Amino acid sequence: MSAVAPTPSLLCEDLVRRALLEDLGRAGDLTTDAVCPPDLAGRGRLVARAAGRIAGLEASLLAFRLLDPDVRVDVRIADGGDAGAGETIAEVAGRARALLTAERTALNLLGHLSGIATATRDVLARLGGLPTMVAATRKTTPGLRALEKQAVRLGGGTPHRYGLDDAVLVKDNHVVLAGGFTEAIRRARASVGHLVKIEVEVDTLAQLDEALAAGIEVVLLDNMDLATLREAVRRAKGRALTEASGGIRPDNVCAVAETGVDVVSLGWLTHSAPALDVSLDVETAAGI
Amino acid sequence: MSAVAPTPSLLCEDLVRRALLEDLGRAGDLTTDAVCPPDLAGRGRLVARAAGRIAGLEASLLAFRLLDPDVRVDVRIADGGDAGAGETIAEVAGRARALLTAERTALNLLGHLSGIATATRDVLARLGGLPTMVAATRKTTPGLRALEKQAVRLGGGTPHRYGLDDAVLVKDNHVVLAGGFTEAIRRARASVGHLVKIEVEVDTLAQLDEALAAGIEVVLLDNMDLATLREAVRRAKGRALTEASGGIRPDNVCAVAETGVDVVSLGWLTHSAPALDVSLDVETAAGI
Amino acid sequence: MSAVAPTPSLLCEDLVRRALLEDLGRAGDLTTDAVCPPDLAGRGRLVARAAGRIAGLEASLLAFRLLDPDVRVDVRIADGGDAGAGETIAEVAGRARALLTAERTALNLLGHLSGIATATRDVLARLGGLPTMVAATRKTTPGLRALEKQAVRLGGGTPHRYGLDDAVLVKDNHVVLAGGFTEAIRRARASVGHLVKIEVEVDTLAQLDEALAAGIEVVLLDNMDLATLREAVRRAKGRALTEASGGIRPDNVCAVAETGVDVVSLGWLTHSAPALDVSLDVETAAGI
Amino acid sequence: MSAVAPTPSLLCEDLVRRALLEDLGRAGDLTTDAVCPPDLAGRGRLVARAAGRIAGLEASLLAFRLLDPDVRVDVRIADGGDAGAGETIAEVAGRARALLTAERTALNLLGHLSGIATATRDVLARLGGLPTMVAATRKTTPGLRALEKQAVRLGGGTPHRYGLDDAVLVKDNHVVLAGGFTEAIRRARASVGHLVKIEVEVDTLAQLDEALAAGIEVVLLDNMDLATLREAVRRAKGRALTEASGGIRPDNVCAVAETGVDVVSLGWLTHSAPALDVSLDVETAAGI
Amino acid sequence: MSAVAPTPSLLCEDLVRRALLEDLGRAGDLTTDAVCPPDLAGRGRLVARAAGRIAGLEASLLAFRLLDPDVRVDVRIADGGDAGAGETIAEVAGRARALLTAERTALNLLGHLSGIATATRDVLARLGGLPTMVAATRKTTPGLRALEKQAVRLGGGTPHRYGLDDAVLVKDNHVVLAGGFTEAIRRARASVGHLVKIEVEVDTLAQLDEALAAGIEVVLLDNMDLATLREAVRRAKGRALTEASGGIRPDNVCAVAETGVDVVSLGWLTHSAPALDVSLDVETAAGI
Amino acid sequence: MSAVAPTPSLLCEDLVRRALLEDLGRAGDLTTDAVCPPDLAGRGRLVARAAGRIAGLEASLLAFRLLDPDVRVDVRIADGGDAGAGETIAEVAGRARALLTAERTALNLLGHLSGIATATRDVLARLGGLPTMVAATRKTTPGLRALEKQAVRLGGGTPHRYGLDDAVLVKDNHVVLAGGFTEAIRRARASVGHLVKIEVEVDTLAQLDEALAAGIEVVLLDNMDLATLREAVRRAKGRALTEASGGIRPDNVCAVAETGVDVVSLGWLTHSAPALDVSLDVETAAGI
Repeated sequence: MSAVAPTPSLLCEDLVRRALLEDLGRAGDLTTDAVCPPDLAGRGRLVARAAGRIAGLEASLLAFRLLDPDVRVDVRIADGGDAGAGETIAEVAGRARALLTAERTALNLLGHLSGIATATRDVLARLGGLPTMVAATRKTTPGLRALEKQAVRLGGGTPHRYGLDDAVLVKDNHVVLAGGFTEAIRRARASVGHLVKIEVEVDTLAQLDEALAAGIEVVLLDNMDLATLREAVRRAKGRALTEASGGIRPDNVCAVAETGVDVVSLGWLTHSAPALDVSLDVETAAGI
Repeated sequence: MSAVAPTPSLLCEDLVRRALLEDLGRAGDLTTDAVCPPDLAGRGRLVARAAGRIAGLEASLLAFRLLDPDVRVDVRIADGGDAGAGETIAEVAGRARALLTAERTALNLLGHLSGIATATRDVLARLGGLPTMVAATRKTTPGLRALEKQAVRLGGGTPHRYGLDDAVLVKDNHVVLAGGFTEAIRRARASVGHLVKIEVEVDTLAQLDEALAAGIEVVLLDNMDLATLREAVRRAKGRALTEASGGIRPDNVCAVAETGVDVVSLGWLTHSAPALDVSLDVETAAGI
Repeated sequence: MSAVAPTPSLLCEDLVRRALLEDLGRAGDLTTDAVCPPDLAGRGRLVARAAGRIAGLEASLLAFRLLDPDVRVDVRIADGGDAGAGETIAEVAGRARALLTAERTALNLLGHLSGIATATRDVLARLGGLPTMVAATRKTTPGLRALEKQAVRLGGGTPHRYGLDDAVLVKDNHVVLAGGFTEAIRRARASVGHLVKIEVEVDTLAQLDEALAAGIEVVLLDNMDLATLREAVRRAKGRALTEASGGIRPDNVCAVAETGVDVVSLGWLTHSAPALDVSLDVETAAGI
Repeated sequence: MSAVAPTPSLLCEDLVRRALLEDLGRAGDLTTDAVCPPDLAGRGRLVARAAGRIAGLEASLLAFRLLDPDVRVDVRIADGGDAGAGETIAEVAGRARALLTAERTALNLLGHLSGIATATRDVLARLGGLPTMVAATRKTTPGLRALEKQAVRLGGGTPHRYGLDDAVLVKDNHVVLAGGFTEAIRRARASVGHLVKIEVEVDTLAQLDEALAAGIEVVLLDNMDLATLREAVRRAKGRALTEASGGIRPDNVCAVAETGVDVVSLGWLTHSAPALDVSLDVETAAGI
Repeated sequence: MSAVAPTPSLLCEDLVRRALLEDLGRAGDLTTDAVCPPDLAGRGRLVARAAGRIAGLEASLLAFRLLDPDVRVDVRIADGGDAGAGETIAEVAGRARALLTAERTALNLLGHLSGIATATRDVLARLGGLPTMVAATRKTTPGLRALEKQAVRLGGGTPHRYGLDDAVLVKDNHVVLAGGFTEAIRRARASVGHLVKIEVEVDTLAQLDEALAAGIEVVLLDNMDLATLREAVRRAKGRALTEASGGIRPDNVCAVAETGVDVVSLGWLTHSAPALDVSLDVETAAGI
Repeated sequence: MSAVAPTPSLLCEDLVRRALLEDLGRAGDLTTDAVCPPDLAGRGRLVARAAGRIAGLEASLLAFRLLDPDVRVDVRIADGGDAGAGETIAEVAGRARALLTAERTALNLLGHLSGIATATRDVLARLGGLPTMVAATRKTTPGLRALEKQAVRLGGGTPHRYGLDDAVLVKDNHVVLAGGFTEAIRRARASVGHLVKIEVEVDTLAQLDEALAAGIEVVLLDNMDLATLREAVRRAKGRALTEASGGIRPDNVCAVAETGVDVVSLGWLTHSAPALDVSLDVETAAGI
């Protein structure tokens, strides 16, 4: 059983269709339509031009399928697998025009999502043997939340909240508007259903003590220096799960993890990880 | 008159609505609904935590408006302006719940698009007094093409093709499927309307000569070394516009531009530029 | 602060618009258009013809607003309030045509959702002083999940899972396909994020013991007789939250709750509760 | 030829897709994805746990097909057929994950619509040999109008108006706004196309006489006591079709029908009929 | 009271939005954005360049409103009114950019629909004092059915069926597939609800006799020569409404109507009527 | 290689689906469902009842496919081919109900678009051996822009701008708002990307000289008399492409073209060309 389930195409079909239409515009692919005969058969190889962890392959193959329902696909490195530089990720064969027209949409999906999976994998590699979980945040690209969270999971990370409605997370702005830390926690606890977890952001050790006293299950240790973080972890041990966040990036993640926090979360994974360089090499084929 | 026209909200409203719904899920904002009284008035400041060129502000303000049509907005640094670290970009005032619930959607739009505008601006700054145009490519995030191209323009760049249908661009894969460089150009020219430009990718000086002989107006010099690039520019001078592309990034863009090409295009601007760090600081207000 | 936050109209606007269009068809309201002058002002009272707990009022008022943006609304009994038979819930005043054309859509929403809230309230009333939580299930009407869950909350109930993605619930069919109860639990625990709760359905006391030994936080006691239920509650006390389900309806809910389970869940609340009888009484008004 | 034509899937595909997405949310089926291997084959039986008339089967099978286009279906009791308690309605075989993930959506559709068909059938059974037509109203669930009307037809009933645009029905509120009963009728008749029927609600025998004198083809006798109803039927005989409505439910429908009215209409059929209890029993299968 | 009710904007808003987006594409209005300052106020007059009956004005004004919610409108000749050549239909004032960008969408709607209304009016004028109704058919432009039917009504015509579901119309192809004319009528009558009319196409006088014997209410006399038509009208008089169709156009409609048929229907009205020539004259204004 | 590429069905599927749903309404095809057994196989021939150039065939066949995915199609005269009066364009075979229900939608698409292609072809025929290009304008039917432009291309014409964003076209209204002809041109040139062409409308020879001096590539000679047009062509020769527009129709197009302009553009082609008369002849078939 694969560690991470593939996203059903029902969940991403609308996005892929919109991405294709965004590229086709009204007049369609002027160049391909002019240059490539309609019945020509073609074959293409999706290639990783740099090494990385693959994500978004299913979505990117859907781009070809939406333009040619009969396209044949041979997956060499599935979502969650690692490609070396120059390796073929998948081969597609079908109507040559469909391959060319879907190319950019497919590559944009594959490159963007594999970039996130690769960044996540690399952050985990930096942590070596540490048991720390690496989590994403809600700092995702508008419209791509589900696929980007999936890419983080394929990279070995954990997705954190998918939205505002699957867990409670009391942050500084909530505290301001509730008129105080204790009152915010009280209100959150009073409203919560029996299947919803509560996490509370704490900025100081005093707040941490208050949260622990209130029986909060998960605490977000926000922007603490390493010493404070270590002390917070010590106090929370056995009483609450600890998550560190705030300005964590590949170059400082190890130091943060070594404080013993259970989870480190990085907005960087989804808002700033560079794309993986991928390409499509096309040739004519014997026949459709 | 501002150099770049604001995107009409009709063009981005659907995206912003989808982004909000993606975050709200089915149950809405559990935390804010629990913690913040429904009639509380709030005030928030959108702040740049790092220096950058602002883009996406109109779209991000729309997130607040869609949740509170009566929200009041005071823009300090409009799209296309430069913010210093710590500077306030805009203030929003309205229902406190709407501010908190829209926060992440607004910041994700603003941070992502300002990241692209900032990267574009900084690439242009590296070019100093060179007249080279800096162009984006179609390597954009699925669903965000129009806004990302707009961000490039706000950074001082030029958008290049918005899709497959607003200009012809004959690339290597087209040449393969047309059965040759000359034949591909011939077909493209035969099909083109009187308001459509043709650009042709050339990989060698021989191909360049062929393209120039055919009267092609714009040539894409792909992945050429600097010496070849210089020679290509020399041959094309006065006969065609030259564009260099392929692996161009901030650290090598200057060397490429110094060859004298008219345009440099960087996929990096839209697929790998890091987000600008932006935040929302909220406080209660006297009344709605 | 109201116990239950109002659903933002962004979350239900699409449903209300679709409901109106479903009633308008292509030709619109033939009768009203024929009978009622376009500029006539009207006034209408939404009346509860039977006593009940109000839910869906915000959504139903949106039906009027979508046809007449200038409609004036005076809410007498807000969502979550109790109406006696014959009491006015709200008054609407605006273009008479809009009132008549939106009438059925508004009443269908209000009657259906108030029916659910009323049923939930009445089940809770039957429980008297018992601390048992009354929960809905995912047995909701297609397309109305969020509003029906909200109606349950307005009736005093708890919403349970909103979908397949906000908590893990291992049921009998999962056990069959995983090849065993223990293995299913093991797999669920291995895949879960740090903000997701796990609930497991147990059909026997032996399975309960297994689940408790595995540290499962919430157990669903499915279709157990009252004696077994009491024993299960005794064993789980202090170790896991207990939820009883399976064939629970208003007439047997009290007996189930008296076993001491923490939660009773009733699909009946959303799939079979009768609608509340509501009507709109219209009269002409002095002027728009 | 079946008495009632199946709804083309084009008419319900959008609803079923939305229902699935409502259940899948962003992260998909956490439990099934964790517990069930991706390639496992499964087989499931849709079972009626209580006796009833089947409706919505085509729509509910579409839920499986949208998640697994290759699912194999064996229908035992088609839409419009009667199932005994415990009988298998249909068998589905395909990817086990798709069966589990689509289960609730399929059952919600099947249970809700079969509940309506069963209630309609049972009302007709109460009427014994009487020739009275049993009609639904526009008191339907928002978004489900077409499927609920179809369920009424499968139960042996007649659908009445599908919306505001397929016939004229002058009701009390129209009379108020037209400034009188006669004027309302006059306006309706003046505006009507040659393929549209007019029905008029009459509350008194005097109004009935007026409507008959005006040549109205169908009269709605609203909330009349049985004696008045009998007299109204006598007066209208041979001149107009008579329909009784207002507070009609299974326990009083027979008395109303015995007055001789041509049609009885019950909002109860679509807004308050309890769901039919249906379930899906799943087992692993030899291979996909 | 106007003879024809205005289409609620809810019914056409989606079409107008799609039409605007179709014109805006991804990059928006390149010319206006380049040429016209963002804050410039403008004023425009919608002018009829030829005489005609106005239709679609409400929809076309919506195009301006969707780009500038604050646009001010002064309607001189409302939908259903007659404009002389050169007359101003409406004035709009607001952001100059919105006026220019919406111009073509607004004119396309207004010109197309006024063309249909004008053609309908002119056909009726040709009939002089004859009482014949002039009906449209379902030969409409995909996506514009409701607006085109409305335009026919504004021209004085009658809309006929809006779709396949608001009346039964048995045509030649149905007869072929039912295996005979009598059987087709029998099946149609057996299935029909109490608010649905049946019309039957008859190609010969023998079929007409059969239809009349079966009590059919409306007969479509298809492609009959004038002599046969006159005889058919004679036979149907007092027993069924008669409608003539098939190749009727402005130049032969009078001859057909003089046979005494109750209705003439012309596909030509919606599929081939030329557009009315309309334009927008824009000038700058003192201030927004 | 066909001269004009077929529109990918992705580009028109949404339109065809909407057109079918517009015809089906809520209750579907009452007549066919009543009259035609569900399992009957049928065969139909799409026939041109008048001679014409075929366009929209792919879209119209999609209407059948969306109702019966297994429909078999035999195309005799593809998009771009010429049909004589009475000739069969294509044969379709499948479920008889699907053929009847899709008939009108398919014919409306085929007739409307073939009407445009035929009109374009006939305009070109009138020009005889002249090299003049015949262009469409943006005066298209809302929602059908892409298909109508495609039909013009299939008729031998050139599509001109598809929208406001694929080229700059400075018109009289722009000049008014920019405060002058020269200033409008200056602004347009300053904002344009390197792949966008600029066309400028000139109403006088003086404006033409100004535009030529500014190096504008394409000039639109609007509503000039033939003598002025001839002089304008003379002045622009070798310096800019010339396009004539304004009131050009089939009966005067030849005179305009003989002035030597490079392009004539006719709004008439898309807003007023009559539909081609097409029909579907259906018969039962041996089996599905």
